[in-house]
Amino acid sequence: MTAHQNPRGDVAVLVPAAGAGVRLGPGAPKALRLLGGEPLLVHAVRRVAAAPSVAAVVVAAPAAEVESVRALLADVAPVVVVPGGDTRQESVAAALRAVPAGPQIILVHDAARALAPPALVESVAAAVRAGADAVIPVLPVVDTVKEVSADGVVLGTVERSALRAVQTPQGFRRDVLAAAHAAAVDALTDDAGLVEKQGGVVTCVPGSEYALKITRPFDLALAEHLLATAPPVSAG
Amino acid sequence: MTAHQNPRGDVAVLVPAAGAGVRLGPGAPKALRLLGGEPLLVHAVRRVAAAPSVAAVVVAAPAAEVESVRALLADVAPVVVVPGGDTRQESVAAALRAVPAGPQIILVHDAARALAPPALVESVAAAVRAGADAVIPVLPVVDTVKEVSADGVVLGTVERSALRAVQTPQGFRRDVLAAAHAAAVDALTDDAGLVEKQGGVVTCVPGSEYALKITRPFDLALAEHLLATAPPVSAG
Repeated sequence: MTAHQNPRGDVAVLVPAAGAGVRLGPGAPKALRLLGGEPLLVHAVRRVAAAPSVAAVVVAAPAAEVESVRALLADVAPVVVVPGGDTRQESVAAALRAVPAGPQIILVHDAARALAPPALVESVAAAVRAGADAVIPVLPVVDTVKEVSADGVVLGTVERSALRAVQTPQGFRRDVLAAAHAAAVDALTDDAGLVEKQGGVVTCVPGSEYALKITRPFDLALAEHLLATAPPVSAG
Repeated sequence: MTAHQNPRGDVAVLVPAAGAGVRLGPGAPKALRLLGGEPLLVHAVRRVAAAPSVAAVVVAAPAAEVESVRALLADVAPVVVVPGGDTRQESVAAALRAVPAGPQIILVHDAARALAPPALVESVAAAVRAGADAVIPVLPVVDTVKEVSADGVVLGTVERSALRAVQTPQGFRRDVLAAAHAAAVDALTDDAGLVEKQGGVVTCVPGSEYALKITRPFDLALAEHLLATAPPVSAG
């Protein structure tokens, strides 16, 4: 255990990182793309593990990469690494099955949001602890949003005051997430959507600009800048 | 005229900057907020004026600030500064009335998108020149998007594959924009929406990550970084 991680915490964090884009080595990675000389996955795990409520972190890696991902994270935080599935949803389910007894709050986090701060982990967890079935961190939608046809013609302007951009970590009562995954019949991109389909109530907490999704070269350049200027990792 | 601006160009760019938030001096500005030691408006005007097709730039300033804005921009580019109206829409209309005879393509640009590159100006103008009534630069929506109630409960997940985040400059055939403003009865935030209401066809071109809207301190910090690392202003 690191100095930060708390075996008596009530939170486990799942990080599905078994997608086809995840491979060690040059050119291929998503979760293993380098940011400041370290893979996104390392940054993400370091930050969630630094949150005081977190008792366990479970990473789902490609079956062939379990050992190398385990080695990669050995010095970062105490982490359980399991083989993931063919889809993100199967990887989340696999990680969920590997959570030890104890934590009743489960967060699901995207390694591409590598700079999501420990404070965001805590605020999502706190909202679940306060009684929510499911909690998502959100930001307002800043740009005007249009709906377009397949050939790029505008169909209309979307009323954006009621829209929110969703980040991770998303938080769940353990039984709620388990039931949502047991009932899941289609592959959605976000776990809160599974809870919505089951009629569960999903509530929002304020997101963090640092939790941006790092997917394009532009994002990576911004993230390098954020990494250089951000305060050091802490739960604050 | 600067070396770049072309009196024989077929494009005029309108920059509405008369909002209540626009005041010279510390603490107040939006369009006059400092980025790299210069107001956002200066950055925005410099970049649009550097686009080879641009023959005229018209800025709508608060009535009491017309002279000071004119002085601010005197060394940046040849710009017409007119008093704006009480709303953004009125300011666009006032700027449109001040466009000299000649340009048949009108772009409307937000000073808060201060780093929108000249190449984006050219690509929007080129799409109008090719026959479109109205053209908007767009980016895909990266984050999952949820619709929420007023008290922060998720109502549903929005299918985002058909959504686009809209930037500026937006481009219009001059007669189309004039007709849309003449017919406008409500204050929308984007001019393409007025054209949509008139039944006009609005088409999309790829936006630029550099055309981000600079509104929050976080954006400003990112923009400072972009400014320090971006290539110098050119039409390329």
